[in-house]
Amino acid sequence: MENQKKRFKIGVDVSGGDLAPLEIIKGAVLAKKEVDQELILIGDKSEIEKGIKKQKSRFTIIDAPERIGMAEAPVSAVRKKRKSSIVVGCQLLKQREIDAFVSCGNTGAVVCASALILRFIEGIERPGIALLFPTQKGISLLIDAGANIDCKPIHLLQYGVMASVYYNTVLEKENPTVGLLNIGEEASKGLELLKNTHKLFGGSSLNFSGNIEAKSILSGNSDCIVCDGFVGNIALKVLEGSTEAMGKLFIEYMKKSLSGRLGLLLAKKNLKNLKKSIDYSEYGGAPLLGVDGVVIIGHGRSDAKAVKNAIGVAARELKRELNERIKKKINEICQDSRVRQILTA
Amino acid sequence: MENQKKRFKIGVDVSGGDLAPLEIIKGAVLAKKEVDQELILIGDKSEIEKGIKKQKSRFTIIDAPERIGMAEAPVSAVRKKRKSSIVVGCQLLKQREIDAFVSCGNTGAVVCASALILRFIEGIERPGIALLFPTQKGISLLIDAGANIDCKPIHLLQYGVMASVYYNTVLEKENPTVGLLNIGEEASKGLELLKNTHKLFGGSSLNFSGNIEAKSILSGNSDCIVCDGFVGNIALKVLEGSTEAMGKLFIEYMKKSLSGRLGLLLAKKNLKNLKKSIDYSEYGGAPLLGVDGVVIIGHGRSDAKAVKNAIGVAARELKRELNERIKKKINEICQDSRVRQILTA
Repeated sequence: MENQKKRFKIGVDVSGGDLAPLEIIKGAVLAKKEVDQELILIGDKSEIEKGIKKQKSRFTIIDAPERIGMAEAPVSAVRKKRKSSIVVGCQLLKQREIDAFVSCGNTGAVVCASALILRFIEGIERPGIALLFPTQKGISLLIDAGANIDCKPIHLLQYGVMASVYYNTVLEKENPTVGLLNIGEEASKGLELLKNTHKLFGGSSLNFSGNIEAKSILSGNSDCIVCDGFVGNIALKVLEGSTEAMGKLFIEYMKKSLSGRLGLLLAKKNLKNLKKSIDYSEYGGAPLLGVDGVVIIGHGRSDAKAVKNAIGVAARELKRELNERIKKKINEICQDSRVRQILTA
Repeated sequence: MENQKKRFKIGVDVSGGDLAPLEIIKGAVLAKKEVDQELILIGDKSEIEKGIKKQKSRFTIIDAPERIGMAEAPVSAVRKKRKSSIVVGCQLLKQREIDAFVSCGNTGAVVCASALILRFIEGIERPGIALLFPTQKGISLLIDAGANIDCKPIHLLQYGVMASVYYNTVLEKENPTVGLLNIGEEASKGLELLKNTHKLFGGSSLNFSGNIEAKSILSGNSDCIVCDGFVGNIALKVLEGSTEAMGKLFIEYMKKSLSGRLGLLLAKKNLKNLKKSIDYSEYGGAPLLGVDGVVIIGHGRSDAKAVKNAIGVAARELKRELNERIKKKINEICQDSRVRQILTA
């Protein structure tokens, strides 16, 4: 059931990301070939024109001369830099001049600008970054990867609903499972926040798979994994760091002997395929769920391929009318008498 | 500066751990060969006698017929099973019948029994599990790996002091660095708990290395890493899970082609060395710091080698009089006028 509207306008933040603007522009050019959508490049106009050269006619360019640095404090940067690509992008989305906004810039600033300018989908109180990653069984979605570090049970329930709808709609799985990240499987484990949330999830119509231990994140035993943004950020950064460190260590140890170096040579193709299978850029950017508009946050280190894939993620969300479905589902779940009873208990 | 007392009595919980009792007994036999200490085996007497056979005369056996299961709820298990190896071990330590207690059993039960029976070192209010792990530069120590999930800044300061003293005393590094696990490097990042703790660490005489991002845990940029037990447990379990998953995935991808299988064969020795370098069992058990007595918690899956190493960790702590030094240092740091000022602000 895809949206019949043929072409969407997807805004791309050309100033955000460690490799901006060139890799972002390259990514947009790649995406243009694969995705039949209108792409709007937002950033320093002269920089964009220089980078895009002959392809200029294929894109709309919106000048946003200010730049929010990757390490700038989000709230003050968003307040002060009204002509930054991030603020301009969110404003265009608010005015429905564009249908989606993709940025690999300062994550905190994208979250902050989106929340302030777009506000939330009806029934949602907090934004959540949804991160898709490869597991032993396929793909899992973790929410929240760092948008909101201070959560109540109701916020985690909203995350669970959004994750479930996303997984169902975009990844096309009927009734996906939703688990809670915790330090033990038993319902009595962990922080008070999680004990209360466990009750709430259990009482809802979500396909609740109980508590998920951190060591099982990569098992794929739960399609969606819910946690607060602090814990989610720690978990994902450890995952990222350990995968990188393991890769380095592997090469180091292989090079220690002639037979190891030979083995490395023979296994070149296998290792390349392995690397691809765990390459986050293959999965595109992370949807910022809950805000009233389609916003995709790319990794700060995104290269052209990652940018292209992030634009693809935006297009899929738009085609499937994700936010409309979230609105409907959150209303349905929060109207449920059991959920209301637990919330008022 | 080692303790002159020649031999210590180290109690070993023979009933705790996934591979108990046989691997634990084997570990004790291995340790007996390497460490010149008296080993006291605590557990089901008939089981121990059956397992230890001819070596019986080399060990003291203390009968503790009850067993606390790996998944039992800690508090009620410790209250009810007074004749379990964990409770008996802690009581022997309290009465100074033994000098240290090593258990690979139910971690929550060991923490709970230790806190209830031994109480704390003067100046310490919460126990913390210190985990040593290999990094790109050597070894780092993370505290707390899961003993105490509800922390105040003062508890994290106490963790920082204990970690620093441990690293200095047992790993013999002068003035080790101590960092705070957080979602960003800036002092303004993260939960209120961490912002306040950042001030406290900065005002203390600890060699504070600031906030450490989760992706840098394995970089070795900070000798000690401090966090609350919930976050620490999540971080370490993700690390454990991802290392395991990466290993499995690697073998799977290598076996996909003939050249990959050949490469695997050629690199066998390199891979074995790599595996050893990241093998947690090489580092022995995790010291439970803060309780008034030397307690070492082994991994639930400990094999004989891990048990042997955990006994070695206990012996080193005893020889270096770790707890005496912690007591001295915590008193010194908490008497500091700047720390007192920040705490009362």
